[in-house]
Amino acid sequence: MPPDRLAAIQGFLNLCDRLKHVHRAARTQGRLENSAEHAWHVAMIAVLLAEEVDPRPDLARVLSMIAVHDVIEIEAGDTFAFDEAGLLTQQAREQAAAARIFGTLPPDLAARLSTLWAEFEAQDTPDARFAMGCDRLQGFAQQVDCGAPAWKEVGLTRARSLKRMQPALDLGPPFAPMIEALYTRAMAEGLLRE
Amino acid sequence: MPPDRLAAIQGFLNLCDRLKHVHRAARTQGRLENSAEHAWHVAMIAVLLAEEVDPRPDLARVLSMIAVHDVIEIEAGDTFAFDEAGLLTQQAREQAAAARIFGTLPPDLAARLSTLWAEFEAQDTPDARFAMGCDRLQGFAQQVDCGAPAWKEVGLTRARSLKRMQPALDLGPPFAPMIEALYTRAMAEGLLRE
Repeated sequence: MPPDRLAAIQGFLNLCDRLKHVHRAARTQGRLENSAEHAWHVAMIAVLLAEEVDPRPDLARVLSMIAVHDVIEIEAGDTFAFDEAGLLTQQAREQAAAARIFGTLPPDLAARLSTLWAEFEAQDTPDARFAMGCDRLQGFAQQVDCGAPAWKEVGLTRARSLKRMQPALDLGPPFAPMIEALYTRAMAEGLLRE
Repeated sequence: MPPDRLAAIQGFLNLCDRLKHVHRAARTQGRLENSAEHAWHVAMIAVLLAEEVDPRPDLARVLSMIAVHDVIEIEAGDTFAFDEAGLLTQQAREQAAAARIFGTLPPDLAARLSTLWAEFEAQDTPDARFAMGCDRLQGFAQQVDCGAPAWKEVGLTRARSLKRMQPALDLGPPFAPMIEALYTRAMAEGLLRE
């Protein structure tokens, strides 16, 4: 491996460390979850659910997308799903961050990671939709498991939450029944308003 | 999905949250790294290096192994590579933990995850060795990047460290040159004793 290539990859991996300090809106054992451990949890969901779906997703592609999907948050930050002001600028911030972050890699790797990230964002392929289902399921389950203080803070209603979760519910099983079971718990525990 | 299966998978995913609170010996921005964010970082290395190796690893299998490889630490804890007392009991603790943790899943998923974990542990396949190389490289780089206080605490020598890293060095490129570059830095910065 040429020294420049080696140094660029090491530099990118060093930069990745910062994702362990990008905080999400859900909590884990009393502290905010970070985007790196979230991405691992999403990967575990993908491993468990991959064989529940027909046709089977391309797990190499799905797990690669999941590993890459939040890296841009190192520069762009995590945008809470119900932060209306943040959502308005999210796409532009993330596009600029992707160019800067993936641009530190050698061109072939920059292209590969950009393509994976863009595929996840575009949601045009079954693999990207499966990865999105795992991502939404993890985020939703984490909120329900931690008592959803962030939902209570914005007075989240079931209808507004459902709008956010609809793309994952539209995937059908196994995502829909798992998310529906979580809604039943969330309503019973008063985490969402009617 | 039958309700029992759904509940078992949700229960396992909830259990997985605990890996975010299993601490490793390396630091990230001043705090201990946890095994969940470590596993994500290892996955990123696998995505970046997969095409540097001939024959190419089966990335679906490698990334699944990486997602699963440390889950047993929820019960068994992380064993520091130079904790001689811990290493003596590590295998027995991890075997028992694997049986308990994977045993909470439906039988087909318990078998799939156990098989992935056992393949990683046995190191008998090229995919398992590639995953191990990514795991060792991440652990080593994280220590060098954080100034390796845990190495200094045990007075780690270059020779003893090399013994630990030998299986990854034996994989050749891209692992060997990346690890050798880190050794050069570690020696220059006084992180290892001669």
